[in-house]
Amino acid sequence: MNERYEQLVSQLHKLALLGSTGSVLGWEQETYMPEGGAELRSQQLSLLAGMAHQAATSSQLGEILDELSTEKFDDPHCPEAVNIRQAKREFEQATKLPQRLVEEMTRVTALSQQKWSRAKKANDFKSFEPWLQQVIDLKREEAQCLRNGDGPLYDALLDRYEPEMTTAQVQETFQPLREKLVPLVAEIAEASNRPDASIVSRNFPAEEQKKFAAEAAKAIGFDFERGRIDESAHPFCSGFGPGDCRLTTRYDENFFNMAFFGTLHEAGHGLYEQGLNPEAFGLGMGSSVSLGIHESQSRMWENLVGRSHAFWKHFYPQAQAHFPTALKDVSLDDFYRSINVVEPSFIRVEADEVTYNLHIMLRFELEQMLISGELNAAEVPDVWNEKFETYLGITPPDDTHGCLQDVHWSAGLIGYFPTYALGNVYASQFYAAAGDQLGDLSLQFKQGKFDTLKTWLNKNIHERGQQYPAAELVKVVTENEFDAQPLVDHLTTKFRAVYVLG
Amino acid sequence: MNERYEQLVSQLHKLALLGSTGSVLGWEQETYMPEGGAELRSQQLSLLAGMAHQAATSSQLGEILDELSTEKFDDPHCPEAVNIRQAKREFEQATKLPQRLVEEMTRVTALSQQKWSRAKKANDFKSFEPWLQQVIDLKREEAQCLRNGDGPLYDALLDRYEPEMTTAQVQETFQPLREKLVPLVAEIAEASNRPDASIVSRNFPAEEQKKFAAEAAKAIGFDFERGRIDESAHPFCSGFGPGDCRLTTRYDENFFNMAFFGTLHEAGHGLYEQGLNPEAFGLGMGSSVSLGIHESQSRMWENLVGRSHAFWKHFYPQAQAHFPTALKDVSLDDFYRSINVVEPSFIRVEADEVTYNLHIMLRFELEQMLISGELNAAEVPDVWNEKFETYLGITPPDDTHGCLQDVHWSAGLIGYFPTYALGNVYASQFYAAAGDQLGDLSLQFKQGKFDTLKTWLNKNIHERGQQYPAAELVKVVTENEFDAQPLVDHLTTKFRAVYVLG
Repeated sequence: MNERYEQLVSQLHKLALLGSTGSVLGWEQETYMPEGGAELRSQQLSLLAGMAHQAATSSQLGEILDELSTEKFDDPHCPEAVNIRQAKREFEQATKLPQRLVEEMTRVTALSQQKWSRAKKANDFKSFEPWLQQVIDLKREEAQCLRNGDGPLYDALLDRYEPEMTTAQVQETFQPLREKLVPLVAEIAEASNRPDASIVSRNFPAEEQKKFAAEAAKAIGFDFERGRIDESAHPFCSGFGPGDCRLTTRYDENFFNMAFFGTLHEAGHGLYEQGLNPEAFGLGMGSSVSLGIHESQSRMWENLVGRSHAFWKHFYPQAQAHFPTALKDVSLDDFYRSINVVEPSFIRVEADEVTYNLHIMLRFELEQMLISGELNAAEVPDVWNEKFETYLGITPPDDTHGCLQDVHWSAGLIGYFPTYALGNVYASQFYAAAGDQLGDLSLQFKQGKFDTLKTWLNKNIHERGQQYPAAELVKVVTENEFDAQPLVDHLTTKFRAVYVLG
Repeated sequence: MNERYEQLVSQLHKLALLGSTGSVLGWEQETYMPEGGAELRSQQLSLLAGMAHQAATSSQLGEILDELSTEKFDDPHCPEAVNIRQAKREFEQATKLPQRLVEEMTRVTALSQQKWSRAKKANDFKSFEPWLQQVIDLKREEAQCLRNGDGPLYDALLDRYEPEMTTAQVQETFQPLREKLVPLVAEIAEASNRPDASIVSRNFPAEEQKKFAAEAAKAIGFDFERGRIDESAHPFCSGFGPGDCRLTTRYDENFFNMAFFGTLHEAGHGLYEQGLNPEAFGLGMGSSVSLGIHESQSRMWENLVGRSHAFWKHFYPQAQAHFPTALKDVSLDDFYRSINVVEPSFIRVEADEVTYNLHIMLRFELEQMLISGELNAAEVPDVWNEKFETYLGITPPDDTHGCLQDVHWSAGLIGYFPTYALGNVYASQFYAAAGDQLGDLSLQFKQGKFDTLKTWLNKNIHERGQQYPAAELVKVVTENEFDAQPLVDHLTTKFRAVYVLG
């Protein structure tokens, strides 16, 4: 066992290094790479992906895993058992995909991201359409290879990001959420005592936004010795591995929320990455559970912490110091209400805490239609705009503010969007449990202390790696079943107060 | 032939992509990587290097090359002949070195670079001495493995950076150069009409330096769609491959020359990289000839163009607009003389156009003595200081400003230094030929036109790849033998004028 296990660890470490090399290249592509480098970069990434796939599916690895699979563990959650189980799961998924498909997917998505970026700038969906269709076709092929049984093809794609979650389960969770949120949004729309939304749209110089957002990221515990923040068209977090985690954001001088809450969001992801066990790099015990659990960390810091009154009790004087012109005559309460405006808007990443979930539901439905074949790429703008009107009561003025806004599809990330709303559900459950176990956290936030919550997350979530799948982790940590009620409770309580509803 | 040749091209392309991936990681390490990422990055680079070495020495590649070696070509300079010849050369070099030696060299140079870095800081040569001796011993062993025939061992090391150039040829070139430069430096030291060196040490705000240097790089033809400039502790150029070439520089607000001429220097390298045939990426026809030829391109744009009076006739008004405080009361002539101060100094990378070559000759002589066994590591400081006094008329105050200043030896880069001065020699020959063929280039420079020279370099040097080895390329392009006389002529004429010598 020991020798075989050491071999497994060594092979997985090498695999992780290959993946991590790809992450550096991917990050660089979005942050600094000149336009002319796109073709070369796509070739590099394709080669790396091919090599990684080869290593991930090698018969040598298969033999090691076969031998180790016969091992019995008294505790199925002990590190060795977890590492072997997760390696086996990944090996099985990887061996289902032909090398040709993996390489083609990498090549096409690298190029289609460039096409998307240009199409978005030029509001030119037509130029992106054939690339989107190519990606969809490849994803359908991928789903055919991966699927078990005869559930919808989409299940197989969802499972890659949210293991063991099905399309039906997500629909089941989203339905009551929608049923509660739609009337809440309507009631808010009618409210007579409204926040002054114009406050966050004053002028906030980018250089000061940059400094202030970095200060906040540092305050909640993001370690700049082991990471950094750069700019990209679409914000993201990329954990290269132990000691190196990258966040990106973007600045709008006339909108405070975008960079600030975007940075807190990515820093929440970053805290998860920086909280993983570095000794278990490449192993189940050193990896995040799922995208939904990852998103629970970013949404918790962005919304449950970052958009709370207690948070701003501490940070508002600093905000006023950074932006004296915009904020000198604004009270803390008015500012707090302004960052918590609920209003249907076009851009997902700028959406408020309540309507955000509706942006996700729309994408979730479009993706299912694209993957089932019910919809083709050419029809996306029309269907997007129709659904948008239905859910949010407004129609995007152009595709740049509609179906071209997100990078995900061009990057082949289909089945990924629902994990954002799942993250909101998990986050509310974890945050309620943290409050139960640690006492009133808002008292600490008012003093600028965030380490109690961070340490709790490190211990209860980050350091556990993939010891438990998402729903089980929720149970272990919160002693409750996976449930959207805490999210509904939070949103209802908070926004009835913000909008002074009876 | 065709099928085998296609296989070769495909393997070399894959090898080039691996190398290019390493280049991205190396560039990022020097520009943006946070401190905590060092260990992970070294593991990534080590994995890539291992995979590249395996691919470069695979028996499959050996068989392909064996079969292709029997092919006869009417024209030995046709693309196929060149590509096969260069691939064979590299395969043979790579396979001549035993794995044990390669690993030992990697281990020892990694450690000795650390020892060097500490020794330099502490001015403690004694602590570095045994490590230097170990590197020398390993390089001697490497030379034994690589050498052909019974020329000096040093030939084999020089050949890695300057293929087909011998120690004797370099000596023959350097000797007359030294004989002319030593008295010129002495005469300059006695000159009564001296430039005002303080002009370039006024305050030049970094942001303006950045803009101005980028404008100049763009003006000489560096394509920012296919490259970019970032900051790093030590400036370099890294051509990732077709469409993507990175330059780095550094800014000193109290010294104009560093960033500006550093950028022009790296942009010269960059023009070479951007001028290579993208279709031949990874092949001899798409690769640079040698380090010396590469350096000829950087030194030409830095010195022969960038430090010329004609260049500043065009750029000086822009310089004054960027730096009104520093330059508003400075005439073009005084500025020109200030950027061309010649003064013996201790640090190679800060040396002027004339004395720079003497810094190189000194290192070249020491390296030969170390590799022949005539000198051991312990004797280096004394011999360094003696030669320094002889060549430059001054003695380093300590080893930090003497034999400990450069990283090269600790990194195992022996045989590398001479290519810097060879670059100056080639540059002057090419530049003289360009003038003969294109007419008086300074008339164009005065109008800010640099494309005639750039296009000539593209056609005569860059696009030829490794079609000819360096000395032969010089002959093909200039119709003259490799010769230091044009460099001597240039330096003598220019600096007798700058220092108003009779």
